[in-house]
Amino acid sequence: MPKPAPIDHADASDAVKAVYDEIKQARNVPDVNNFWKYIANDERTLRRTWDSLREVMAPGALDPLVKELVYLAVSVTNNCDYCIASHSAAAAKAGMTPAQFGELMAVVGMANETNRLAAGYRIPVDPAFDR
Amino acid sequence: MPKPAPIDHADASDAVKAVYDEIKQARNVPDVNNFWKYIANDERTLRRTWDSLREVMAPGALDPLVKELVYLAVSVTNNCDYCIASHSAAAAKAGMTPAQFGELMAVVGMANETNRLAAGYRIPVDPAFDR
Amino acid sequence: MPKPAPIDHADASDAVKAVYDEIKQARNVPDVNNFWKYIANDERTLRRTWDSLREVMAPGALDPLVKELVYLAVSVTNNCDYCIASHSAAAAKAGMTPAQFGELMAVVGMANETNRLAAGYRIPVDPAFDR
Amino acid sequence: MPKPAPIDHADASDAVKAVYDEIKQARNVPDVNNFWKYIANDERTLRRTWDSLREVMAPGALDPLVKELVYLAVSVTNNCDYCIASHSAAAAKAGMTPAQFGELMAVVGMANETNRLAAGYRIPVDPAFDR
Amino acid sequence: MPKPAPIDHADASDAVKAVYDEIKQARNVPDVNNFWKYIANDERTLRRTWDSLREVMAPGALDPLVKELVYLAVSVTNNCDYCIASHSAAAAKAGMTPAQFGELMAVVGMANETNRLAAGYRIPVDPAFDR
Amino acid sequence: MPKPAPIDHADASDAVKAVYDEIKQARNVPDVNNFWKYIANDERTLRRTWDSLREVMAPGALDPLVKELVYLAVSVTNNCDYCIASHSAAAAKAGMTPAQFGELMAVVGMANETNRLAAGYRIPVDPAFDR
Repeated sequence: MPKPAPIDHADASDAVKAVYDEIKQARNVPDVNNFWKYIANDERTLRRTWDSLREVMAPGALDPLVKELVYLAVSVTNNCDYCIASHSAAAAKAGMTPAQFGELMAVVGMANETNRLAAGYRIPVDPAFDR
Repeated sequence: MPKPAPIDHADASDAVKAVYDEIKQARNVPDVNNFWKYIANDERTLRRTWDSLREVMAPGALDPLVKELVYLAVSVTNNCDYCIASHSAAAAKAGMTPAQFGELMAVVGMANETNRLAAGYRIPVDPAFDR
Repeated sequence: MPKPAPIDHADASDAVKAVYDEIKQARNVPDVNNFWKYIANDERTLRRTWDSLREVMAPGALDPLVKELVYLAVSVTNNCDYCIASHSAAAAKAGMTPAQFGELMAVVGMANETNRLAAGYRIPVDPAFDR
Repeated sequence: MPKPAPIDHADASDAVKAVYDEIKQARNVPDVNNFWKYIANDERTLRRTWDSLREVMAPGALDPLVKELVYLAVSVTNNCDYCIASHSAAAAKAGMTPAQFGELMAVVGMANETNRLAAGYRIPVDPAFDR
Repeated sequence: MPKPAPIDHADASDAVKAVYDEIKQARNVPDVNNFWKYIANDERTLRRTWDSLREVMAPGALDPLVKELVYLAVSVTNNCDYCIASHSAAAAKAGMTPAQFGELMAVVGMANETNRLAAGYRIPVDPAFDR
Repeated sequence: MPKPAPIDHADASDAVKAVYDEIKQARNVPDVNNFWKYIANDERTLRRTWDSLREVMAPGALDPLVKELVYLAVSVTNNCDYCIASHSAAAAKAGMTPAQFGELMAVVGMANETNRLAAGYRIPVDPAFDR
């Protein structure tokens, strides 16, 4: 098996092109980013991931900017550089300001710190939290 | 060294009591939760963590509910049960609804999924994201 | 301490050369890959890691391709780029097809997603699973 | 927001019942396990997760036992106790023997070890792996 | 496959007993702890893990207490409760004081925090560190 | 929001310059490394992180070299390349020898391996460790 390569629109199957076109229209962009071009190597993963993301990231009880901030927080915690780069851009497009980015990183940093203090001290859950 | 045990207000040093009292006043609660009672075994960690959290979680460019949602998202990604329990409670107190919790979990789940797709396919960062 | 540098066969101690030669023979390759050349900076880690890997990855109750797929799944979950690159190559050499790689990534992605749903909802283990 | 509680079939909405019934039929079980009863608090997550899992875990280029082994490997790497318990049971149902479980754990352990050696020594990807 | 159960000395094979006896003698304890009794379900993993641990944890360029502190730091970062409990005990046996434990947790917490700041800000490695 | 860029001393606010100067004096270096120049985008995070690190990494019950080794162990476990590079350099400056680095990596590797064995076998904490 060779290393996975990106699939451009011109070389894509009809099923892949259909997803690409939906993404381009929904996001109003001239081309899809690398994430989609790589996972297009598995048509079902491409279709399932796009359908799932569209549903999950749609405005709902949480607004799109909050969802992008959460996405970025998870990506930073997992140290996924591609995801940090792409979701920083997506969050900025959704309105994230530099001050909001700074506060987001501060919260993510503190949460990762206190998560380990809780683990290391083996702290039992307070009964009030279990109700 | 025995297993760390929680330090109650009555048994605490003056320095520890001072932090407990600040937390109780700031949060309008009758007692601090286990997290503080355990890390109180190291007075400097107690003081530094409280001062840092108070600064980081204060209203700013992001509102307190958003910060609690992000804290919870990180805790879920790290699988820290104590932190999930305590920050679910804190987020609920800050106004999180069941619908918001459901959407939060959906975003956290998707982010953890696509973080691995990005890693596994070894996707290079789009030049547009590097500017 | 300078940054660790790779140790080539020509510059290696007899103990390191012996391990390199075993790897080359077992895998039928003209040279060992960077992983071995770097950990060779600690001869005991080189010897122990090779002996352990040879034992663990040998055909047994699980066949070598399945073991490589599992190795790759762990490496993707940990976001280890070197390991993803080297074990994608190893899995391909063991017979992994592009379709199998695509399904593997899909399973790894879903598992990372549902792992967080289970954590976030604080789901108790079903009694049937504890027997 | 109270702590999420499991939703039993008798108390479920029609949409939730429909998913439960599909799971029960597909797996030939009298009731769904706690995972589904908890995520049912968000109907869309329940439906999306079930549809995705059914697609991803179906027999394909990889057989169902291999997929379950991979799912378990990821869950162990993430230290998700619920997931380890439920997917150990699922793997056993799909035919995993104790010897296979032992070898799986051995591979997962070694992969987590060597992932860190690769990170710590900052090993560059061999050019041969980048083709 | 039933759930893995611990194997007591009385019920163990000769190969397992031999490892148990080596551990008991090396550590001067009347019985091995649960870790060994569970992984004994796979005799080769038991033997390999004991031989590796004995080699890695032996006094060398780092003294045994430092090695235990590092082991505990990793276990806390991975949120492995069993490992935190057992290696806290091992570190205490090797001489760790409560003050040292407190400082260790503080360092582990800070490292987990700054690791995420480095990831989130996508900080490039300083040329001086790459030499 | 554009991508975060490093802030050099010449372009920094007085508050940022003050932190930079404290770091340069405390570490006896002509300039701060990239970590500080990037997090300086959020002045409060810069100040809080420096004050916290200075307190946590100061000589105490654990000596500075041990603290750097622990910092490096966490960074390797989290696969944070920037942090591995910078804390390898810091540890070397604090006296870490190549032999110590090799043993450190060996311990970190083994801990990550046995953490997963403990999780996968679902090993209960020995009562002796809970006292």
